[in-house]
Amino acid sequence: MADPHSGLKDLIEAQLPAYLDTGSTPAVLKEAMQYALMAGGKRIRPILVLLTNELLGGSQRQAIDTACAIEMIHTYSLIHDDLPAMDNDELRRGMPTLHVKYDDAIAILAGDALQSLAFETIASDQQLTDSKRVWLVRTIAAAAGPRGMVAGQMLDMEGESQDIGGDALAEMHNRKTGDLISASVMAGACIADATDAEQQHLKAFGYSLGLAFQIRDDLLDVTGDTQTLGKPQGSDLRQNKNTFTTIYGIEGAKARLDTLRIEALKSLEPLGQRAEPLIALTHFIVDRIH
Amino acid sequence: MADPHSGLKDLIEAQLPAYLDTGSTPAVLKEAMQYALMAGGKRIRPILVLLTNELLGGSQRQAIDTACAIEMIHTYSLIHDDLPAMDNDELRRGMPTLHVKYDDAIAILAGDALQSLAFETIASDQQLTDSKRVWLVRTIAAAAGPRGMVAGQMLDMEGESQDIGGDALAEMHNRKTGDLISASVMAGACIADATDAEQQHLKAFGYSLGLAFQIRDDLLDVTGDTQTLGKPQGSDLRQNKNTFTTIYGIEGAKARLDTLRIEALKSLEPLGQRAEPLIALTHFIVDRIH
Repeated sequence: MADPHSGLKDLIEAQLPAYLDTGSTPAVLKEAMQYALMAGGKRIRPILVLLTNELLGGSQRQAIDTACAIEMIHTYSLIHDDLPAMDNDELRRGMPTLHVKYDDAIAILAGDALQSLAFETIASDQQLTDSKRVWLVRTIAAAAGPRGMVAGQMLDMEGESQDIGGDALAEMHNRKTGDLISASVMAGACIADATDAEQQHLKAFGYSLGLAFQIRDDLLDVTGDTQTLGKPQGSDLRQNKNTFTTIYGIEGAKARLDTLRIEALKSLEPLGQRAEPLIALTHFIVDRIH
Repeated sequence: MADPHSGLKDLIEAQLPAYLDTGSTPAVLKEAMQYALMAGGKRIRPILVLLTNELLGGSQRQAIDTACAIEMIHTYSLIHDDLPAMDNDELRRGMPTLHVKYDDAIAILAGDALQSLAFETIASDQQLTDSKRVWLVRTIAAAAGPRGMVAGQMLDMEGESQDIGGDALAEMHNRKTGDLISASVMAGACIADATDAEQQHLKAFGYSLGLAFQIRDDLLDVTGDTQTLGKPQGSDLRQNKNTFTTIYGIEGAKARLDTLRIEALKSLEPLGQRAEPLIALTHFIVDRIH
């Protein structure tokens, strides 16, 4: 399936390196940050910021820095998740992970630096009012921090050694992935001056989309192939991870995915025809093969 | 020597745990963050925020959240620096480091979460105008990130395997320690509505103080004892680290320290008598025995 968002993806990837051009970052650190940031990926979070902002009538110029900052947060989390002390993954998107390409210390520091740079980028964004910058830093930091993404990663590690139920698994993924995906949609809405009602619909949409994304990921780990995935097929099973397929079976996980697709689309209904780009993105994410 | 700032230290340590009381942080993650945050230390950065703010007539209520946020950033950097992949330190302030007490994965996550929480805390501070919150996030993130503290840690690691000169060593410490110490002083000044001239004097003071702090640290590693230090004496030498004593010798390092004390006090002169608390802090740091 052709990626309907390749234009936005290109825009984001053309913009990302600019944030690293600061002159005084040590060369190896900058290289490592750039390697991780430019290693591809679907760029779903920044695309969500830009699409949501655009459909609500916002200006792209005002949203691009925040979009890229959220991608920096996402990238830092992947770098740290891949470390030997965490998931110990050597391959991501078909390329060596950062600690394999460099070493563990550089991977830790590059991740740390990307997190700082993300918040500096938002706080420095002269296209936005101070009030919006404050809202964005607060919302994105909360989604990334000890009650959000990091909490999800912690719950994920704790769950590896024990059987957990479907609700606990969904809760873990809502923290690990849903919080930052929802924050991306909310950020686009904030920049475009969305109403409170629009924000709430988009927030709910973000959590449905985030969980759908994860279930498709779990299904691909069982049914995909290593070359298309860019990472070893079956790695969840080998790591004794709880996934939606181990808990519900393949058919059960597919049924759950269908329900989430419907819920996501339902959350978009109040936005009317304007939501068309997010509807297309939802189908793209649910139906993807890698 | 009695700590002249024990009152502020107590205030900071009474306040710090409140930021972790969020209800939805996983128990082990919260425990680990709390262990690292409450493991003692001199609290120099938050004391600098509070003292500077106070001497310029600012309100303590407006400065306490920023002071604690900077301590969170400092604590996250210590947690990550101590990891086996970095400095591999097992003891800090006489207690097991976080990865020894828990494990590497939890230490990585607790550090990551403290960084997010720091920026969330500043962005959520209802005592401050949006404009100040934006300035603080931008300044502190820049001091912590790829051109600041993380750059310093990177230069430190690169320098371990080679002989570097005194200028390169000072530059490394200006990034690793000076940037965040200067940001602490600047943050206190910003909150108290300092003039641009006051900000510049205080910024210069921060760098002199930061470097003086480091030279005293290097001297203590050679001349102190393990029990007073709370960490193994002589560990820099065993790790083949470049220090001010390996480059200048003990007497040379002491001379450099005296010069920096004078420079620090000179930067404070334009502030007049108001600077008395920072003068006392400078002597406390330069003359300390642990």
